[in-house]
Amino acid sequence: MNDTICALATAPGGALGIIRVSGPEAFSIVSSLCSVCCANCAANTIHYTHIADCSNIIDEAMISIFCAPHSYTGENSVEISCHGSRYILSKVLELLVQHGCRMANPGEYTQRAYLNGKMDLSQAEAVADLIASTNEATHHLAMSQLRGGISSELSAMREQLLKLTSLLELELDFSDHEDLEFADRNDLSDLAVKIDNRIVTLAHSFETGQAIKNGIPVALVGKTNVGKSTLLNKLLHDDRAIVSPIHGTTRDTIEDAIDIQGVTFRFIDTAGIRQTSDKVEQIGINRTYAAIEKARIILWIIDAAPSIEEIDDMFNRAKGKSLLIIRNKIDIQRPSDLDLLVHPLPNNKIAIEISAKKEINLDKLEKAIFQAANIQEFSEQDIIVTSARQYQSLTRAHEHLSCVISGLETNLSGDLISEDLRLVLDDLADITGQGRIVTDEVLGNIFQHFCVGK
Amino acid sequence: MNDTICALATAPGGALGIIRVSGPEAFSIVSSLCSVCCANCAANTIHYTHIADCSNIIDEAMISIFCAPHSYTGENSVEISCHGSRYILSKVLELLVQHGCRMANPGEYTQRAYLNGKMDLSQAEAVADLIASTNEATHHLAMSQLRGGISSELSAMREQLLKLTSLLELELDFSDHEDLEFADRNDLSDLAVKIDNRIVTLAHSFETGQAIKNGIPVALVGKTNVGKSTLLNKLLHDDRAIVSPIHGTTRDTIEDAIDIQGVTFRFIDTAGIRQTSDKVEQIGINRTYAAIEKARIILWIIDAAPSIEEIDDMFNRAKGKSLLIIRNKIDIQRPSDLDLLVHPLPNNKIAIEISAKKEINLDKLEKAIFQAANIQEFSEQDIIVTSARQYQSLTRAHEHLSCVISGLETNLSGDLISEDLRLVLDDLADITGQGRIVTDEVLGNIFQHFCVGK
Repeated sequence: MNDTICALATAPGGALGIIRVSGPEAFSIVSSLCSVCCANCAANTIHYTHIADCSNIIDEAMISIFCAPHSYTGENSVEISCHGSRYILSKVLELLVQHGCRMANPGEYTQRAYLNGKMDLSQAEAVADLIASTNEATHHLAMSQLRGGISSELSAMREQLLKLTSLLELELDFSDHEDLEFADRNDLSDLAVKIDNRIVTLAHSFETGQAIKNGIPVALVGKTNVGKSTLLNKLLHDDRAIVSPIHGTTRDTIEDAIDIQGVTFRFIDTAGIRQTSDKVEQIGINRTYAAIEKARIILWIIDAAPSIEEIDDMFNRAKGKSLLIIRNKIDIQRPSDLDLLVHPLPNNKIAIEISAKKEINLDKLEKAIFQAANIQEFSEQDIIVTSARQYQSLTRAHEHLSCVISGLETNLSGDLISEDLRLVLDDLADITGQGRIVTDEVLGNIFQHFCVGK
Repeated sequence: MNDTICALATAPGGALGIIRVSGPEAFSIVSSLCSVCCANCAANTIHYTHIADCSNIIDEAMISIFCAPHSYTGENSVEISCHGSRYILSKVLELLVQHGCRMANPGEYTQRAYLNGKMDLSQAEAVADLIASTNEATHHLAMSQLRGGISSELSAMREQLLKLTSLLELELDFSDHEDLEFADRNDLSDLAVKIDNRIVTLAHSFETGQAIKNGIPVALVGKTNVGKSTLLNKLLHDDRAIVSPIHGTTRDTIEDAIDIQGVTFRFIDTAGIRQTSDKVEQIGINRTYAAIEKARIILWIIDAAPSIEEIDDMFNRAKGKSLLIIRNKIDIQRPSDLDLLVHPLPNNKIAIEISAKKEINLDKLEKAIFQAANIQEFSEQDIIVTSARQYQSLTRAHEHLSCVISGLETNLSGDLISEDLRLVLDDLADITGQGRIVTDEVLGNIFQHFCVGK
């Protein structure tokens, strides 16, 4: 934190680009590139200037001055607002580095904010989630975490656990005073179970958090020409995939997302499965199988009766996933086609009958897809865990708390129980990073997934 | 200009996104979304706040206050700096529109800056060029125009022309006073010729300006498997195109750019030309012919002797363009292949011998490509015209000035010459838009190519 970092904070392109400079030399380095003496500027003021390399003007820019500790990072910081040309932005960054800045690592501004006590670790993680948020659900989760939702819940839990610990340690210290009354072990056990239940609920919310955050992968598979690309386009309300009557039109897997009931589903259109001698198409078909592997939901689209072998194959590939069987083209099927499922499907599955082209039953299909995702219902106030790191800490806390509970039940000596309780407290403290020494490795893992410039 | 406009000024994505609000209600509208009363804020100050939709917090944001006339547009303006989430940015824009903003048209901020006298038209055009600048050459052209390069040159020219006009009109007013001496018509003619030469030079610079601004399109064509994609990748220093020994691997035209001596060349790799029954490949081959049409330079890559028909066809298609014939794979050719150009090429053309794979003679090829572009050399101080609109005005000015010159030479009466001179003055005034009424149509043409948010 002794050096001064710089990075582009906006996406390249656009009318404006913002370059952030933060650190002890932020003011002096920026001052050397323009006519503003940053150190003499009032905090939170904006100044018009030229950014120049000697006499060569790179851009007309606005610079914003933020003084420690009242900045995002808690350090002296300057934001340079330039024209959004790639050439200008890279030239300004080049100049900053020449004058003593270091290019920031991903998330380094937020990491400095954490290290300077501007936010806790769970809030830092929420910043990345907030930037990545694409819909109401992901925005809500990130914003509630940034505003300290899980932090305040954990803080209340830790207080209760600390009380439990001190009661146990009091018992320990005065154990030879037989005339003193201590807390009822049953009461203690009840409290531990109550906290543990809450921890399990939080940990359990991670699955929903993951689904909401990353979107749910849905593979559209089936033979060539059953209408997979047509269905994808209709679901996306867009002409995303090329549709033609030629078999094997789709070669690359095409991916795009839609939100159903506020949750993102990532649809993957795949090459139709058939025997082919076309090498490029065969590569596409192999990718279809890879897409099935990765999907959580499989939409198997058919327009004719599949053979027993095909049914076996698909049910095998779909093990552990949700498989929806979609019978497409019901608008053009002759009466004799109507009973096209000559072989009964395993597990009493029935096909959803649609016409992608005529948009028949697509709302029914969307509902079925949402149900197949099996997402836990949650309300505005619920805290949903979205970070794998937090999930792991919660899981560890639950394990250690289970030892506490069984210790209380089996009348284990207070000092042993107390040891486990300390571990639970540490596990919970890891989530926010408050009152704990967080290793560089843990910090690295958290911030490496950030974008540069945040 | 009575309404208040809003738009995203940065590219979507990135850690930060900036939304610009400008117009008479900018302060009151933004104030209604957050806890800051913009009207009470000092100019050029930054304020931390929450942007909220009723009680629902959309984001923690920084808002910057700019007061008329000292803002980019010359109006009251606010910049809202949010987290760069697409959801947040679209939600904030939605709120601004709900509270009375209109979504800005492309370039509308700069249009307002022009209408409020903050810059002239040629400078407004330079803003778009500056944002689009991707290398030193385009940046230099745009920055010199933004700093008023052409404006001051035109202003000097107009002053001389006004002097010429007043001398002619003086002659006219006092034509019956035979004892008065007037300027020598030869001197006037010399001055007009000098100014006309300068106008022609400026107009002539447009070709170079266009090439520098848009990049020079170069098509890579030839049979399948002569190594077009390999050459593209080597020129780009990148694995841009898929390379395989399979004939017809490239189907879509692939485009990417490199800078040679500060100028951008846009290379277009095309599907190899061959007889094919594959419909998709045939579409690709048709696109190859379209790419040749659009290119300024054609790289015809061969690895075997082309037939007379092929030579005729390619020279026909390349008419009016620069054609470079590239003999690839010289690293693996047997001695008997060495004289593979059995038919002499028209115009004594000779092939450039290279090996794309082994990177032999690629520097020689780059030099040949740059020469084929036929770009006028220019120095730091030269003014280069990059706008078609300015070029048209210069061409018209030249036409009208030619009439003036021939009028002076043929001793035409002063009032007729003076009429033509007025037209020249108008043509030159059109370029900067100063002292002229610029129609909405002209403004529309200028600003429609801007990005939204500038």
